Amino acid sequence: MSKRNRAKKRGSKLIRRKVDKTALPPGSLIRETAGPPAKVPLALIDYDASQATERTLDTIAQALPFKDRPTVTWINIDGLDADTIEAIGKTFGLHPLVQEDIQTIGQRPKCEEYPDYLFLVTDMVRFDEAGQGLTFEQVSLILGPRFVLSFQERPGDVFEPVRARLRTGKGRVRTMGADYLAYSLIDAIVDHYFTALEGLGAQIESLEEQALSESDPTVVGRIHGLRQELSLMRRSVWPMRDLLSTLQRTDSPLVSESVRIYLRDVYDHTIQVIDTVETFREMAAGLLDLHLAAVSNRMNAVMKVLTIIATIFIPLSFFAGVYGMNFEHMPELKWTWAYPLGFWAFIVVVVSSMLWYFRTKKWL
Amino acid sequence: MSKRNRAKKRGSKLIRRKVDKTALPPGSLIRETAGPPAKVPLALIDYDASQATERTLDTIAQALPFKDRPTVTWINIDGLDADTIEAIGKTFGLHPLVQEDIQTIGQRPKCEEYPDYLFLVTDMVRFDEAGQGLTFEQVSLILGPRFVLSFQERPGDVFEPVRARLRTGKGRVRTMGADYLAYSLIDAIVDHYFTALEGLGAQIESLEEQALSESDPTVVGRIHGLRQELSLMRRSVWPMRDLLSTLQRTDSPLVSESVRIYLRDVYDHTIQVIDTVETFREMAAGLLDLHLAAVSNRMNAVMKVLTIIATIFIPLSFFAGVYGMNFEHMPELKWTWAYPLGFWAFIVVVVSSMLWYFRTKKWL
Amino acid sequence: MSKRNRAKKRGSKLIRRKVDKTALPPGSLIRETAGPPAKVPLALIDYDASQATERTLDTIAQALPFKDRPTVTWINIDGLDADTIEAIGKTFGLHPLVQEDIQTIGQRPKCEEYPDYLFLVTDMVRFDEAGQGLTFEQVSLILGPRFVLSFQERPGDVFEPVRARLRTGKGRVRTMGADYLAYSLIDAIVDHYFTALEGLGAQIESLEEQALSESDPTVVGRIHGLRQELSLMRRSVWPMRDLLSTLQRTDSPLVSESVRIYLRDVYDHTIQVIDTVETFREMAAGLLDLHLAAVSNRMNAVMKVLTIIATIFIPLSFFAGVYGMNFEHMPELKWTWAYPLGFWAFIVVVVSSMLWYFRTKKWL
Amino acid sequence: MSKRNRAKKRGSKLIRRKVDKTALPPGSLIRETAGPPAKVPLALIDYDASQATERTLDTIAQALPFKDRPTVTWINIDGLDADTIEAIGKTFGLHPLVQEDIQTIGQRPKCEEYPDYLFLVTDMVRFDEAGQGLTFEQVSLILGPRFVLSFQERPGDVFEPVRARLRTGKGRVRTMGADYLAYSLIDAIVDHYFTALEGLGAQIESLEEQALSESDPTVVGRIHGLRQELSLMRRSVWPMRDLLSTLQRTDSPLVSESVRIYLRDVYDHTIQVIDTVETFREMAAGLLDLHLAAVSNRMNAVMKVLTIIATIFIPLSFFAGVYGMNFEHMPELKWTWAYPLGFWAFIVVVVSSMLWYFRTKKWL
Amino acid sequence: MSKRNRAKKRGSKLIRRKVDKTALPPGSLIRETAGPPAKVPLALIDYDASQATERTLDTIAQALPFKDRPTVTWINIDGLDADTIEAIGKTFGLHPLVQEDIQTIGQRPKCEEYPDYLFLVTDMVRFDEAGQGLTFEQVSLILGPRFVLSFQERPGDVFEPVRARLRTGKGRVRTMGADYLAYSLIDAIVDHYFTALEGLGAQIESLEEQALSESDPTVVGRIHGLRQELSLMRRSVWPMRDLLSTLQRTDSPLVSESVRIYLRDVYDHTIQVIDTVETFREMAAGLLDLHLAAVSNRMNAVMKVLTIIATIFIPLSFFAGVYGMNFEHMPELKWTWAYPLGFWAFIVVVVSSMLWYFRTKKWL
Repeated sequence: MSKRNRAKKRGSKLIRRKVDKTALPPGSLIRETAGPPAKVPLALIDYDASQATERTLDTIAQALPFKDRPTVTWINIDGLDADTIEAIGKTFGLHPLVQEDIQTIGQRPKCEEYPDYLFLVTDMVRFDEAGQGLTFEQVSLILGPRFVLSFQERPGDVFEPVRARLRTGKGRVRTMGADYLAYSLIDAIVDHYFTALEGLGAQIESLEEQALSESDPTVVGRIHGLRQELSLMRRSVWPMRDLLSTLQRTDSPLVSESVRIYLRDVYDHTIQVIDTVETFREMAAGLLDLHLAAVSNRMNAVMKVLTIIATIFIPLSFFAGVYGMNFEHMPELKWTWAYPLGFWAFIVVVVSSMLWYFRTKKWL
Repeated sequence: MSKRNRAKKRGSKLIRRKVDKTALPPGSLIRETAGPPAKVPLALIDYDASQATERTLDTIAQALPFKDRPTVTWINIDGLDADTIEAIGKTFGLHPLVQEDIQTIGQRPKCEEYPDYLFLVTDMVRFDEAGQGLTFEQVSLILGPRFVLSFQERPGDVFEPVRARLRTGKGRVRTMGADYLAYSLIDAIVDHYFTALEGLGAQIESLEEQALSESDPTVVGRIHGLRQELSLMRRSVWPMRDLLSTLQRTDSPLVSESVRIYLRDVYDHTIQVIDTVETFREMAAGLLDLHLAAVSNRMNAVMKVLTIIATIFIPLSFFAGVYGMNFEHMPELKWTWAYPLGFWAFIVVVVSSMLWYFRTKKWL
Repeated sequence: MSKRNRAKKRGSKLIRRKVDKTALPPGSLIRETAGPPAKVPLALIDYDASQATERTLDTIAQALPFKDRPTVTWINIDGLDADTIEAIGKTFGLHPLVQEDIQTIGQRPKCEEYPDYLFLVTDMVRFDEAGQGLTFEQVSLILGPRFVLSFQERPGDVFEPVRARLRTGKGRVRTMGADYLAYSLIDAIVDHYFTALEGLGAQIESLEEQALSESDPTVVGRIHGLRQELSLMRRSVWPMRDLLSTLQRTDSPLVSESVRIYLRDVYDHTIQVIDTVETFREMAAGLLDLHLAAVSNRMNAVMKVLTIIATIFIPLSFFAGVYGMNFEHMPELKWTWAYPLGFWAFIVVVVSSMLWYFRTKKWL
Repeated sequence: MSKRNRAKKRGSKLIRRKVDKTALPPGSLIRETAGPPAKVPLALIDYDASQATERTLDTIAQALPFKDRPTVTWINIDGLDADTIEAIGKTFGLHPLVQEDIQTIGQRPKCEEYPDYLFLVTDMVRFDEAGQGLTFEQVSLILGPRFVLSFQERPGDVFEPVRARLRTGKGRVRTMGADYLAYSLIDAIVDHYFTALEGLGAQIESLEEQALSESDPTVVGRIHGLRQELSLMRRSVWPMRDLLSTLQRTDSPLVSESVRIYLRDVYDHTIQVIDTVETFREMAAGLLDLHLAAVSNRMNAVMKVLTIIATIFIPLSFFAGVYGMNFEHMPELKWTWAYPLGFWAFIVVVVSSMLWYFRTKKWL
Repeated sequence: MSKRNRAKKRGSKLIRRKVDKTALPPGSLIRETAGPPAKVPLALIDYDASQATERTLDTIAQALPFKDRPTVTWINIDGLDADTIEAIGKTFGLHPLVQEDIQTIGQRPKCEEYPDYLFLVTDMVRFDEAGQGLTFEQVSLILGPRFVLSFQERPGDVFEPVRARLRTGKGRVRTMGADYLAYSLIDAIVDHYFTALEGLGAQIESLEEQALSESDPTVVGRIHGLRQELSLMRRSVWPMRDLLSTLQRTDSPLVSESVRIYLRDVYDHTIQVIDTVETFREMAAGLLDLHLAAVSNRMNAVMKVLTIIATIFIPLSFFAGVYGMNFEHMPELKWTWAYPLGFWAFIVVVVSSMLWYFRTKKWL
């Protein structure tokens, strides 16, 4: 990928709140006017300790029968279509501001309590091996008494292991409530921060060697890119801590006592991610210092070679030039030993004393 | 725009508290003595759920009939004329310090509670596409039981969408009280921070490429300008957070419970703006490092070329100079193969060994 | 002023606690032994809503009649003479530590509550246009039930506007108590911070241009001096915030409820000063970066010129040198077109290809 | 050790959470599938004031008889085998998340209270004299009513002095409860931080001299390595403070009042370690500045030599070149005193004035 | 003092906890085994308002008669001998951890409350004029109901003024209790921080001039040394603040109400020391920037001289070289005016245009 494209790609991450909402009343959704509404797939999993049902719905109306059952229902929505969000909002009684927040990407992770549900905005990070960069995707969660709604920007997520556990009944997830499901989803998200950190750690290690050797002139750009990734990661992970802290200490009945111990665990993981991000940031800042110092040292070495050669030969050239002059009265020119002894001996003396001088200066 | 002018323009933003008030008692207003008082337009909008009336008033006295009606009244004043502020102050019972604060531009955003009203000072920011810079304008708000007063430095603002919604009755604004109107105005102001951030983000992206390529020598000045804009933005947005936090937690009856949830939303947006400003500040600081490292690398490359050429040819010139000397007794000059074989073969050996040396040093 | 003198002058500000008190018991005053005690002028203003009396006293005993009147009495003392302070201390019942603090310059601004009075230490800052520097002067205030004492290091202060208002009865000051007078004095002090900031802001703007152009080699020293001024300003203004915060929240009956709102106002101004100092500090730090980057860029430009010239002409000189050699057998020398075609064409080819190379490197 | 290997070695420390757990349900242990389960040695010490018994167990079942005795039992487990941890977990009733945390290396030090036991994760640091680096090892402690369990990554630890005291009965350890034993283990761990700091302090001192002399070009890499060690140390020691603070203030009956005073002592030591790490970090950052400044100064010296030589001899060479030209009409060439007086006198004048110029510039 | 020795000396300050205590149980004292126990002088002063008795004791047993008298007793111990500390510990009932802390130098200043006494660890700093460095010495204080014990590392301290006041009865010290004595000792220690700061301030001022002039190449090392001194000072003085804050707010009856006001005073002084240390740290960091910028500017000046000379004379040498060639067919050589007009006029034109070019670049 060219440097220019990398910069572009990163640039587009700086602010992810694309649509101009300044002219809309608070709580409005943005409808893309052209064409028929996109068909957004709703993936429903309904389970209790004994079984798990999986469906793909076309409309939210099909989810209604599941809503009031004693089982736990998880509906995952890929794509932030205004009509779909509004329909879901009506069905589950979501506040207009919640609906707006779900659709507005680039939100800061947060946890808000509403009387009937908790609203969570999280940031899902993935490390793209090919482009060697991070991609962020907003995932909004609604935790209700017996249901969880998850809204993603686009298909593809980190929840596959949770689905597998729901299908097979492995682990505790089927025997516990919607709050444990929400916890499992957050845990999956936080676990992927570690994967991202591993990728970034490998980059740091590889850049460390390159920063010292400098054979590759793009190293400065790559260190800069790494620091930006870490800045973005930091902006994403610090609020996750607040989210989890709020969730853990909430007195909402939606979070049961037995799940709080799990939330403390994922909270600890988040702190660990933050610690590592901060340590990585320091190291990345150190990389540039390292590189600059290496460049400086190398420049010094280059300058020394130039200075040694020039300091030795420029005076010698002058003396050679002197005896290349065409004055008629230059008695030295006629002396027999002037060239072999006088000139060359003089040269040897000059060069020797210069070499000795350079050695005292520790340039050789 | 010349560099000098840009610096001037920025400079004038550093401190915006222009008038010398050191000699005035606290709570005084500054009257510009020359000429008749400027006629300041008062734009009044009076509305309830069913209708909205719009007027342009010449004197504040004309607003009196609206004051005691059950409808909500919004009076917007463009320009900070002492007489107008004093007249409004008397009509609405504003404390002398409030009147002084309204007139003194360059205030820090803040929220102060008075028995009968809340006094808010906010900073409206706009990104000027042409000059690529930010302009700040102080907007003071008075939130009373059934009225809102807004004072601006000059005509032109970011409230047009709110006015449009008041006229058309779109959204909730007409059905709710003066507190919701105040919220809407603040929301409009905070939304424009995002617009400003988008502009600055685009600047960062474009400077990123330039910092590496350096063809443009003004890049240092532009990075410096960007950092100053971010410093000013930061100074403006951090107090906004305190303002909103105070407003949200106030126990004044002027802010109803239903509006607090909206205030929490705009508070979240402010936090997000702060996060982004801090991230941008880091990136801008990184840009200078990037640029310096790139300059350093480039200097190194320049020095290497100089050193290679000089190191090869300065000794050669010396040898050529030696055989240009006019000593009578230089036996080599008479040897037949001295020039084609002796001299050139020597040259080839010297150059080859130097090239080999440079290659081991990885300079080639 | 020479650089050396500026450094000296600044140096003397670093620590202002001159006298060696390590050998004295706590609460001692330092008596300068040589000569008779300096006569320190005591300026007294006694006022109530209806009148204001102004006197210059020779001894504190003359102030006694005013002490118990229902009017408010302000005594200003210029110069920190031990005997005077001790006499006043006895008359007004000041704690020995307070007396010591009044005399010890270089105190940190603070607010201490004693049963009968409040003791305030403040820092008065003035911007010296000529020397372009800040001067700090300690002003101690004693706020009693119906009197205010102010102690200054030397004559000349920022209180003239307050005196004028006392004389003319303009503003509220004559109708209110001693606490409002103390507030007015602090307000005058804080207002002068803004004046100082304006001076420093102008320095930043002017240094900004110079940092980029470098024609003036003293720019580094001046940036350094500016940063030191800001460091000292910062050390002075942060404790002022604590002082005002303490004063505002004190439950001492000496501060009336109606004055607290004014104290909140001057507290806000102090916060604003702090914000601006911090922003200026960032900008001043940025100035040095700016300057170093500009120097670096300029060095690069210089090196490029050197490298281009040397890289072109050093090899050419070698070739000219070759054909200036005196070997007898140099067949080229005899060819008719060797000089006009062979030599010059070769030169043109070499120079052209080098220029083309430099252009691909973007050095031209 | 080569630079590359050192980087590798350090790299592997950056993230120590090796195994990919993203696909496992929370609370799972990782079983290495190939081969029979490793046999993990369990070292048991059972003691009271009068005696101490030492055993090496093969299975946890053998520990059961000790569990309910009134004596204190310490079981140390080297190696994090899933089956062993699970068996111990069952025997002592450990929460699945605790079991998972014990096995997951790279945990952040923390203290968690469970109804029947306290769970502590600590970081044991050791300074490797040979490789001049730090190695971290996770040690998990379970503090029960009359037992302590300690889990280590591999054999070899810092607890030998504690064992010796248990065996000989020296000090208080045998007369006190399990909480004092846990304290002794933590104290041993914290004491080793001081040993590590001494090693790092010696590195700083030796690098300080090298940074100034630069004869060794690897100094930059070594400073960088030192800063990374300090970053890792910092990441490890800050959470230890929280751990000890929690432990000291816990209201769990597992920590007796008399032990809290000892915990305060080890807490103080941790603060001292943190202080020293922070001071070292500053010094290490200063080392790079020192080195860069030294390199810069040295480069300046090199440049001066080059400039002096080149500035003197390049013009002289030109003049020698002029009189080496072969124009037919160069009248100077025929003057008798042109060479000895005209030429050499001119040279002497030029060189003298240049030397005088350099002296005024303080380059000589 | 050589650079190497200064580094050594500083190095030894980095960690002052010399003895390896990792193998000792907590609360142990280290006995130096070789030779008979050192005889440690115990200096006793016993006083009340009317008299003061001074004794030098050989054993602590001699102090017993003074212990239960109503007078205040101060025992100062120079040297940290294990036997002496243990004997005193037994006599005054000191906790084993307190005894260990007294002996372990390099402790962090702290204040610990025990039922019968307060235990204070402080850091006494002295500025060594000769070596221009700071020396730290640990002073432990035990404040009992009617006695104060002070333990120092070695003879020589800052308490002489306090002793003088005790002997002469000057000041309040003889009329007040043991708490006032303890305060006086702490006050003497804090007063010496100011002396140290004055010494460092003078160093900053002198380094400021040197950083700009660079004639002295050791300036980098000295700035680095200064920064280390400030780091160590900072590590020492910050905990003093906590100590005094704890002491002031303690509810121990050992500290009387009337002494708390004095403790507030010395607390304020400590804050002032901290402020100054932080300001100095900033200035010292700025010094290196200043120096690097000055070096950079100077390098730029050197490079310009080289570039101007080389750029002018290298092309000229080439042209002189051309007409020094020995081609047979060089028609210019035979033209009469070629040398005086053609050559020299060409030279003048080339030099003039180059000088003009340099002037447009502002290099001249």
